[in-house]
Amino acid sequence: MTDRPLSNRTARLARAATVCGAGTKLCPAERATALLEAIIEPGDRVAIEGDNQKQADFLAAALAKLDPARVHDLHMVQSVIALPEHLAVFERGVANRLDFAFAGPQSRKLAELVAAKALRIGAIHTYLELYARMLVDLTPRVALVVADKADRDGNLYTGPNTEDTPTIAEAAAFRGGIVVAQVNEIVDRLPRVDIPCDWVDFVVPSPKPYLIDPLFTRDPAKIRNENVLMAMMAISAVYEPYQVQRLNHGIGYATAAIELILPTFAAQRGLKGKVARHFVLNPHPTLIPAIEAGFVDNVYCFGSELGMERYVSSRADVFPVGADGNLRSNRALAQVAGQYACDLFIGGTLQIDAAGNSSTATKDRITGFGGAPNMGADARGRRHDTPAWLRAGQEAGESLRGRKLVVQMVQTSQPNGAPSFVERLDAFDLAASAGFALPPVMVHGDDVSHVITERGVANLLRCRSPEEREAALRAVAGDTDFGRRQSPEATDNLRHRGIVMLPSDLGIDEKTATRDWLAAKSIDELVTASGGLYAPPAKFRRTTVAAA
Amino acid sequence: MTDRPLSNRTARLARAATVCGAGTKLCPAERATALLEAIIEPGDRVAIEGDNQKQADFLAAALAKLDPARVHDLHMVQSVIALPEHLAVFERGVANRLDFAFAGPQSRKLAELVAAKALRIGAIHTYLELYARMLVDLTPRVALVVADKADRDGNLYTGPNTEDTPTIAEAAAFRGGIVVAQVNEIVDRLPRVDIPCDWVDFVVPSPKPYLIDPLFTRDPAKIRNENVLMAMMAISAVYEPYQVQRLNHGIGYATAAIELILPTFAAQRGLKGKVARHFVLNPHPTLIPAIEAGFVDNVYCFGSELGMERYVSSRADVFPVGADGNLRSNRALAQVAGQYACDLFIGGTLQIDAAGNSSTATKDRITGFGGAPNMGADARGRRHDTPAWLRAGQEAGESLRGRKLVVQMVQTSQPNGAPSFVERLDAFDLAASAGFALPPVMVHGDDVSHVITERGVANLLRCRSPEEREAALRAVAGDTDFGRRQSPEATDNLRHRGIVMLPSDLGIDEKTATRDWLAAKSIDELVTASGGLYAPPAKFRRTTVAAA
Repeated sequence: MTDRPLSNRTARLARAATVCGAGTKLCPAERATALLEAIIEPGDRVAIEGDNQKQADFLAAALAKLDPARVHDLHMVQSVIALPEHLAVFERGVANRLDFAFAGPQSRKLAELVAAKALRIGAIHTYLELYARMLVDLTPRVALVVADKADRDGNLYTGPNTEDTPTIAEAAAFRGGIVVAQVNEIVDRLPRVDIPCDWVDFVVPSPKPYLIDPLFTRDPAKIRNENVLMAMMAISAVYEPYQVQRLNHGIGYATAAIELILPTFAAQRGLKGKVARHFVLNPHPTLIPAIEAGFVDNVYCFGSELGMERYVSSRADVFPVGADGNLRSNRALAQVAGQYACDLFIGGTLQIDAAGNSSTATKDRITGFGGAPNMGADARGRRHDTPAWLRAGQEAGESLRGRKLVVQMVQTSQPNGAPSFVERLDAFDLAASAGFALPPVMVHGDDVSHVITERGVANLLRCRSPEEREAALRAVAGDTDFGRRQSPEATDNLRHRGIVMLPSDLGIDEKTATRDWLAAKSIDELVTASGGLYAPPAKFRRTTVAAA
Repeated sequence: MTDRPLSNRTARLARAATVCGAGTKLCPAERATALLEAIIEPGDRVAIEGDNQKQADFLAAALAKLDPARVHDLHMVQSVIALPEHLAVFERGVANRLDFAFAGPQSRKLAELVAAKALRIGAIHTYLELYARMLVDLTPRVALVVADKADRDGNLYTGPNTEDTPTIAEAAAFRGGIVVAQVNEIVDRLPRVDIPCDWVDFVVPSPKPYLIDPLFTRDPAKIRNENVLMAMMAISAVYEPYQVQRLNHGIGYATAAIELILPTFAAQRGLKGKVARHFVLNPHPTLIPAIEAGFVDNVYCFGSELGMERYVSSRADVFPVGADGNLRSNRALAQVAGQYACDLFIGGTLQIDAAGNSSTATKDRITGFGGAPNMGADARGRRHDTPAWLRAGQEAGESLRGRKLVVQMVQTSQPNGAPSFVERLDAFDLAASAGFALPPVMVHGDDVSHVITERGVANLLRCRSPEEREAALRAVAGDTDFGRRQSPEATDNLRHRGIVMLPSDLGIDEKTATRDWLAAKSIDELVTASGGLYAPPAKFRRTTVAAA
């Protein structure tokens, strides 16, 4: 689709003036749908800010109310499909094309709509490549974004959850696009400016604050001994020998366990100041004890996390806090930081196949990737070296470059009993049924350096053939069909060669791998560790309330 | 080095107030060195904006004047080493550590200073990874940036050459750092805000406008027939068969030739609307005829190019132009766009070895990389597909991913007669003498998809072994020692298998490969093509003046 000339912007703005009044950027909430009808034309590419955390929910609802007889065939470009309204635009015939990065709770419904041909998916992206395409070949004609506050000139303040807003606004504003922001309030003077008013055409005060989810909070009470064991192995087999100082953690109880045993297990091994100094990570509450123990020098953030605002503000020496005293996060820059300034990505998955490919896709759900493929890939454009990167490269047999450490942590069986190790990923079936050119593999096997289960660690860097890699994976797959296909002798051989490490090979007595290592064992203890500054969202306070 | 707490920022600002006066961000030019002495402490990490194009030259000079008895051991973090003042800080003992991305005219002097132990290089980076590290482990305590204009609140307007400024300012401002901007003028009202005043602590009006170089301008008069031949092969062997729509061009006469034969040679092959629609590129003047011919849909820009301002403003449908009517470029986002939203990078090099590794490093010069390694690498985190990416992946034998097209264009001999193909890169010697852990390879052989010389095209994707790759390279290395080691029979064999293509194999009659294909043959003709809007810098107008 060829972009229409800029002059068309003038016509759209003239129509909008009949809705909002001339000479103002403020649009009353009740006229939001009328505004969108004035500025959006059939066939437009529209970016709506559906972030990992915060949502432009009011504008999403306004968009879903458009009359499909007047506005139709829209091409939606958005990071996350999170709300029913995000799919309603397709069900109602307002939009019919979608390019996105992640669909969490809506993944099943999305798959149904694709099967029913209510929409066509262009591609599933990582966050960073979706932003990249917004600048190049998926340039938005209209961008609907969300911020905390605006002033009357249209300057925006995002508060700690800056996330995608500056990038989406920049992509649209400098392509003759029209930028509309929903805000919680209009104020005379902003705490700081996150997006300058020249980039914003309209501001809509929303009747209620935008929706935001505490997606990155894990209750320490739910961390099990197996998670602690895997965390201990991660530190012993990866953080310590590779001297990993700069890293990114995925979400999950296993990585939360790592965060919580830094000040105990890792400190006891003398690793304070030697590993895990620089994080690229949202402000996980489970990071508080490590920060308070002086383990962590700094944390660069994709977004924020509900309840962490006051604590983060109090640790401006650790988090990216502005002169106004609040966090500014930036998902695009954090993805860049994760790719180019981290030596380790460690995260979980649902399925791993014999080649080490992993995926969270299942046949009936189109979940997407988010940021994991970007983090969980070797950045071949990287040129600076660190001990971690050089050692990983040497182990992999590289002579001219290092390697990123990409660690997948997974229990051999999922909570529902399904095996995590499979001969064939469900992603292959999904690709066939959804008509994708390639299966949606989250992390490719040839990018994975280590797989950690409750049984042990497989170092895939040291494997010199696909067969060896497969044997290493079977060795840590435990009591699954996949694991039982391997003889104990073959596993012993891999142990002798340092490719497979069982807990005992790492000097870990499994009986000692318990929750006792956790520096905080509950949300309450995290609050205490924060000096009372962490304010857990209601859903995480339930246990406390029950106990009171 | 552990970052000091934020409270120290307050002390620094208090000292600065004694220089500039309380309650103002404006610092008179004559007090610039005093201001820097007030805010910088020994051992600080300091980012100075030395961009690919514009330079914070006044602040660089002020920094070089600091008294090393008071300010010393600085750790400089900067994209480009471009000015004598950038090295003077090391010669004078003000700074002793350097992390950077590119050193053009200063590369020889830099190598001398390293040999004399006047400074220690941390690493040579790509632009994008240097920004990434500024957010993570090379966070600047003080950032010295440059913009066109500021208002009295400290809001900055960069004009078209936005380049690195927002990224450097963000990295420093949200780490308790201090941001100082030199500007050409202070105005009451800015055309637009590029960096909000909350991110800027001090503004220094410079006595003269900042230095900026037209680095991306190539005079069509200097393009030779050989460049045209290579451009024709690039279009016939790569753009056309892979349907390359999204791409990035390096700088050089060969890529300038491609730009100038799009509206002639490529159009004659029926490729308008089918290839080269979306560029990630500075506004190269040699792109004007293709834009005017409707060949190019849009161009996203790292920076701008001197003289192109009015033309770019007139083509807001093509370039990222704001509501103020001027380009906003963004080097960080453009690097992301080049990595994740381009299917092709094509650029030149100085040396290629038998493995296909290429480098611009020579023993006596530490030049660095700039952005080339980032562009010239396969982005393994990419997940969306295009015909170009899928075809490249299939040819390379990939089953689960595509491949980026990375094309190196090089004449078999350099203008000084030195062979471009060598058994061993000078980069290996440089690594040894400078003490680098790895040789500074610009583009790794295993990331290169095609090498094009005036003799032919080698498709490395189709090579299945290092030996085959080497043979393909020797086949296009022409009359060099490197090329003569190959028998004509071996080359014929590679031609039959479609690995090597000579001009005749591509249907190109070498006699017709002449400058006649160029849509503009001189700077004057580019001006004409732009409708008189392109205003060439003085150094490119010389020929015209001589003829007048």
